[in-house]
Amino acid sequence: MNLKDFIQLLKHHKLDGFFLPRGNLFIGQDILPQENLLQELTGFSGSASNLLITAQGKSVLFVDGRYELQASREVDLASIGIICTTTQHTTPLEWMKSKLPPKFKLGFDPWLISCRDFQKWEQQLPQCSIKSLPLENLGIKADIPCSDIFAHSLEYCGISRDEKIASILSALSQQGLDAYLFTAADSSSWLLNLRAASLPDTPLLRGYTLVDQSGRVSLFAYRHNLDNNPALAGLDCYDISELPHRLSAYKRQTIGTDLNLCPEHIATLAAKYKITLRHSPDTAAEQKCIKNPVELQGIRSAHLRDAAAMVTFLHWFELNAAALPLTELDIVAKLHELRSQQNLFFSESFDTIAAYGANGAIVHYHPTPTTNAAIKPNSLLLIDSGAQYQDGTTDITRTLAVGTPSPEMIADYTHVLKGHIALLDTIFPQGSSGRQLDAIARRPLWQHGLNYNHGTGHGVGCFLNVHEGPIGISTSYSSHPLTQGMITSIEPGYYQTDGYGIRIENMAEVIPASIDGFLGLSSLTLVPYDRRLIDKSRLSAAELDWLNRYHKRVWQAISPLVDKGARSWLEQACAPL
Amino acid sequence: MNLKDFIQLLKHHKLDGFFLPRGNLFIGQDILPQENLLQELTGFSGSASNLLITAQGKSVLFVDGRYELQASREVDLASIGIICTTTQHTTPLEWMKSKLPPKFKLGFDPWLISCRDFQKWEQQLPQCSIKSLPLENLGIKADIPCSDIFAHSLEYCGISRDEKIASILSALSQQGLDAYLFTAADSSSWLLNLRAASLPDTPLLRGYTLVDQSGRVSLFAYRHNLDNNPALAGLDCYDISELPHRLSAYKRQTIGTDLNLCPEHIATLAAKYKITLRHSPDTAAEQKCIKNPVELQGIRSAHLRDAAAMVTFLHWFELNAAALPLTELDIVAKLHELRSQQNLFFSESFDTIAAYGANGAIVHYHPTPTTNAAIKPNSLLLIDSGAQYQDGTTDITRTLAVGTPSPEMIADYTHVLKGHIALLDTIFPQGSSGRQLDAIARRPLWQHGLNYNHGTGHGVGCFLNVHEGPIGISTSYSSHPLTQGMITSIEPGYYQTDGYGIRIENMAEVIPASIDGFLGLSSLTLVPYDRRLIDKSRLSAAELDWLNRYHKRVWQAISPLVDKGARSWLEQACAPL
Repeated sequence: MNLKDFIQLLKHHKLDGFFLPRGNLFIGQDILPQENLLQELTGFSGSASNLLITAQGKSVLFVDGRYELQASREVDLASIGIICTTTQHTTPLEWMKSKLPPKFKLGFDPWLISCRDFQKWEQQLPQCSIKSLPLENLGIKADIPCSDIFAHSLEYCGISRDEKIASILSALSQQGLDAYLFTAADSSSWLLNLRAASLPDTPLLRGYTLVDQSGRVSLFAYRHNLDNNPALAGLDCYDISELPHRLSAYKRQTIGTDLNLCPEHIATLAAKYKITLRHSPDTAAEQKCIKNPVELQGIRSAHLRDAAAMVTFLHWFELNAAALPLTELDIVAKLHELRSQQNLFFSESFDTIAAYGANGAIVHYHPTPTTNAAIKPNSLLLIDSGAQYQDGTTDITRTLAVGTPSPEMIADYTHVLKGHIALLDTIFPQGSSGRQLDAIARRPLWQHGLNYNHGTGHGVGCFLNVHEGPIGISTSYSSHPLTQGMITSIEPGYYQTDGYGIRIENMAEVIPASIDGFLGLSSLTLVPYDRRLIDKSRLSAAELDWLNRYHKRVWQAISPLVDKGARSWLEQACAPL
Repeated sequence: MNLKDFIQLLKHHKLDGFFLPRGNLFIGQDILPQENLLQELTGFSGSASNLLITAQGKSVLFVDGRYELQASREVDLASIGIICTTTQHTTPLEWMKSKLPPKFKLGFDPWLISCRDFQKWEQQLPQCSIKSLPLENLGIKADIPCSDIFAHSLEYCGISRDEKIASILSALSQQGLDAYLFTAADSSSWLLNLRAASLPDTPLLRGYTLVDQSGRVSLFAYRHNLDNNPALAGLDCYDISELPHRLSAYKRQTIGTDLNLCPEHIATLAAKYKITLRHSPDTAAEQKCIKNPVELQGIRSAHLRDAAAMVTFLHWFELNAAALPLTELDIVAKLHELRSQQNLFFSESFDTIAAYGANGAIVHYHPTPTTNAAIKPNSLLLIDSGAQYQDGTTDITRTLAVGTPSPEMIADYTHVLKGHIALLDTIFPQGSSGRQLDAIARRPLWQHGLNYNHGTGHGVGCFLNVHEGPIGISTSYSSHPLTQGMITSIEPGYYQTDGYGIRIENMAEVIPASIDGFLGLSSLTLVPYDRRLIDKSRLSAAELDWLNRYHKRVWQAISPLVDKGARSWLEQACAPL
């Protein structure tokens, strides 16, 4: 399907426009390439975007600051306009509210829009006539093979399914609900201690889970094999296509669900069966965000193995960068090779970013055979990568000097590092949210007129989504308080368009501070920073002390895990500055 | 009226409770003592509070973090419970939502609750039956003398009334409104370039203004003299009691108003006359927040005179603190004497806070004859004061050592000063809000386990409210971007209960930074900090440099404005550290 053909379909259905998020029936979760109709229509390969296809004039692609540059390079600007919601301080809805003309006929797929968003549309787009039109009815359906479901062992997940379900049941009766419907795939995965090889980088069980007062737990799976699987014992398993029929058994009852995560299509089904669909926040999402002691143990352990792979890689890179004509894709392959040798490795946690020179300035660039740059000794190499281990998920960014870095590169790197250290070295009162902390990482950059057009940090799942809500450290969202046991990335950056990109990312655990009532951050990531890029004269005594203590910790933890060559490289990399 | 009698009235009207904000028909503006029914019933003297009076059990007083300690000292805890909304992360509505039992009959005065708040009540308190009952119908009416209205000269306000009205008229036609009703008293004051001696510390014209498409401007004044006043030429002036009759002339028309600021009573009147009341943000509030060049000139000039008074005071205090047995009220009187000698002085801008020792730990304490403490040479004295000059409003806090300060006092003061400097010395990208910047002032305190239970800064009017929205620097509100020409206070603090209080407050102007796309803050307040309380060893080179540059600027600007004695004191106070 191309954009022209889709516009023809629009006209055929007498629509003026169609709103298409990059998504599927699991609102806000990652998707398969073949589910990415937005990319098929526009060529835009980034995540987190929305497309308004219009019958007349240019269609509109909404992206956030991370993707502004990338979008302008990937899409046909003659037929598609780009709106950067970050720099224009807008949302797709606000934009449509102010720009769509009266009597605009707007179509949407009710599987792809949450009930809450649809309610907002109804309130804020009074000039539009909004028409529900599933893509399937337009003959558009992704071809997705069925994948297998497997158990996430108690050894790594720490709390049994029965215990998790018991807490849901007690919440049901407290809230006077007959049942609760979990529509977020990662909530079902966590709640049922199940995983699946559904997506290349995320072991997500893709399904809805309905828990009712009688204790019955029904899994509505989306493209999974359900037969003869001992991991599914004790569950009533159905294909998602059976959801309408099964819901009809709850006629006139009250079902709780998180309306921010539940597709509008479910609201239509509920209305059909006179089911009251009541908003109740997804407690699985809240609970899985606070890692239990077993999960924390696993996550720390996974980071040791991941750091061993990274240190081995960094040593290899130093040996080979000058000698061989390496490319970005060689880096991707080498990191895969080294990580896949680690115990409990399952997959990458996202497509590895290896971005040399100007490619590094495209936030969330991924090398492809057509963009694959040769690594020459006169710029910076940004590597953002991570893995899914059965005991934990990793995400790390290091920026390396290739050849002799310029004074400007060293200054910029040092400013970013100061922001990174500032936040990792902050203690904050209990109850503080990520939104409050964001500027702490930015201030050292701001003071030199630098900034970055993305969040400072995101939550991370345990052998699950590498981007996990509800916490995050950013200017625009997440008023959720940070509490002990949560984990977040800390990743300030700086991007010089057509020059180079710098990002320095550690994952960190929220821990109690030594002062009562305060919390702090402890790095899970244990990999040295590139000392060739650090201008020591720009660091305060406290920053230098933090850096030397971190490198000492890295040396102590990782040196026993790597071979002799890498160990001697690590010793130099971790020597006091 | 006491609480017992009010509860009898409740029972007589068959109500289970009555919700009483500290306020009047100008939502969110300051009030006269005789309008403070909440204080009359509870004894609580702080601002920003709400009272739920209940027929059964304890009534509930809602206060924010600034007032938690003060409230517990002022109210009868046997009959009134205190809820601190800051520490309990709640709002009065959220609290009522979760705590009020089914079928609770809740009364309120529709003059005291905004339309928006009432809409939220209706949505979120489905268990309550809500009854509109003006306090007047309960026989409760404040006795308020009429005050005179006078013009705010163009020399100080900078933009003529005609020009301001013209911009409102153009907005009316753009928005398809027949008229716009301004219900915020400071919006009317600003729009009409009028002031009045209505409140002791704020020269507020208290009235609503209706501007209609024909260009007719009607002022509905609340307790003001309207006869034979040349300042009112060109306006249709009525007493507010005529509002219903005048509104009836707009039958079936559409009137815009800011529903966050408009009392629910107006919505009832509008419904009666089939007037469509449409929410439209108060543009006067937005416009007056960005000071025009004439206002900025006046505000800077007012701060020079205010600093001269403060420096003269500080010199006087040093001479007399040891010799005389001074009290807090002596400080209040002396500051009044010195400020009132300054050109264009009109009044204080709020009740002066002079808080010695443990009194300083009560945020927003004001000395009274019963609390008035003697100033002895072994603690800290916190002085928060300001004035209304016709060309600008000031607000400054300085904390002074009396006698020899302890090492702990010096350390705490230095941490607060570091927070104060950190924010004043930050540059930030255009589009940043006060909410984003808040933690920058807190981090130096957090690092030592200290914090403060109030916002970091508030907007300030020009010869108007000393607390002016919509901007502010705090954790919980104000996503409004800071732009050039806005002014805000910067006032971190630390309060050691039963020990002492520290707050350091400058007013600052938002200015362009030397780097394109960035903004910075320039201090309007020009008064030295107490060097006896500064531990230089805890300051970074950049902080020390900022401090010395600030003191140099103070010396250059203020030394010509004070007498010889104060000048030689100032020279020492501003010498490089």
